[in-house]
Amino acid sequence: MAQTLARPVANLIELLSRLPGVGPKTASRLTFYLLREPNGLAEALAAALGALGTGTVLCERCFNVAEQSPCPLCADPARDQTLICVVEEPMDVLAIERTGAYRGAYHVLHGALSPIDGVYPEKLKIAELVARVQAAAPREVILATNPSLEGENTAAYIHQQLAGSGVQITRLARGLPMGGDLEYADEVTLSRALEGRRSM
Amino acid sequence: MAQTLARPVANLIELLSRLPGVGPKTASRLTFYLLREPNGLAEALAAALGALGTGTVLCERCFNVAEQSPCPLCADPARDQTLICVVEEPMDVLAIERTGAYRGAYHVLHGALSPIDGVYPEKLKIAELVARVQAAAPREVILATNPSLEGENTAAYIHQQLAGSGVQITRLARGLPMGGDLEYADEVTLSRALEGRRSM
Repeated sequence: MAQTLARPVANLIELLSRLPGVGPKTASRLTFYLLREPNGLAEALAAALGALGTGTVLCERCFNVAEQSPCPLCADPARDQTLICVVEEPMDVLAIERTGAYRGAYHVLHGALSPIDGVYPEKLKIAELVARVQAAAPREVILATNPSLEGENTAAYIHQQLAGSGVQITRLARGLPMGGDLEYADEVTLSRALEGRRSM
Repeated sequence: MAQTLARPVANLIELLSRLPGVGPKTASRLTFYLLREPNGLAEALAAALGALGTGTVLCERCFNVAEQSPCPLCADPARDQTLICVVEEPMDVLAIERTGAYRGAYHVLHGALSPIDGVYPEKLKIAELVARVQAAAPREVILATNPSLEGENTAAYIHQQLAGSGVQITRLARGLPMGGDLEYADEVTLSRALEGRRSM
């Protein structure tokens, strides 16, 4: 086996299979695809991966991944900087921006509390959020952490930390997803949808 | 949207989503994973991708991907070089080596005939195989192309090209896969299994 695979090939397979959701089979399929891909995709990917670390910084205000600090979202005077949407990951910023329904600022925590996995408040950008709220006195902080156990705990913890700051703290609405089917909704979602019912 | 994503991030997402089986969602998930991965996986991957092109060659005899030519499999005196197993891709060499049941040489075609996709015999290492058989006069050529339309056509074409060379030409057995269930076998597999039945 060892001598069957050229070392650069075996090496790339091993590294690719460290990615989440990529097993050894997928890793070798991707590697052999890159080997025969004639348009320099491997070289382009190598350059892009190299630029990922050197070409990006964390915005010092919102901790989103950006090319410079403050990031374009924090520097944009057209956005309502008195509204801070707190999310777990940079990907969540992208998801909310895609809706086009939000024109405020963000705060990226870079994770959710999970003591079992060793993720304590100090590992997240929570102290930075508290300091930011104290300094900037926004009118509203929207806790948009995930509707999961960790996300709920993180939201509860931040709520506690910001209590007494006088700022309005909100949480994203829970309820039935659009296009969903009431019959197939889980009990928690359905009871949250009932709790949060609105008059028409 | 454009200004939400740092350019290095957007660039990597775009390149990753060109990989087979990787959509935009997976590409961005992988990118953000690499962004927060602290152990230099992005840098290691960049180096491995760069080495893929510069560190590998095609063996001039069997056209497998290797670090030098002839490759370790062709250079190994312990292997039966009078037996040539013809496969479509380097991955197939790996699959056969994994069985431990084969100790001969290989010939990698780098594809299968598919005129619709513009893959004509000239695009594959078929002329090289014919020349190799004429020069080395092996005792057997095993056609181990895939049991698909393209693989069957490729095997038939090579069979035609080698007719008259006097070499024995065989094809991998078709039949029921181990662990399979007769009830769920498709008609073609089942009729091939019947055709190929052996006395016990």
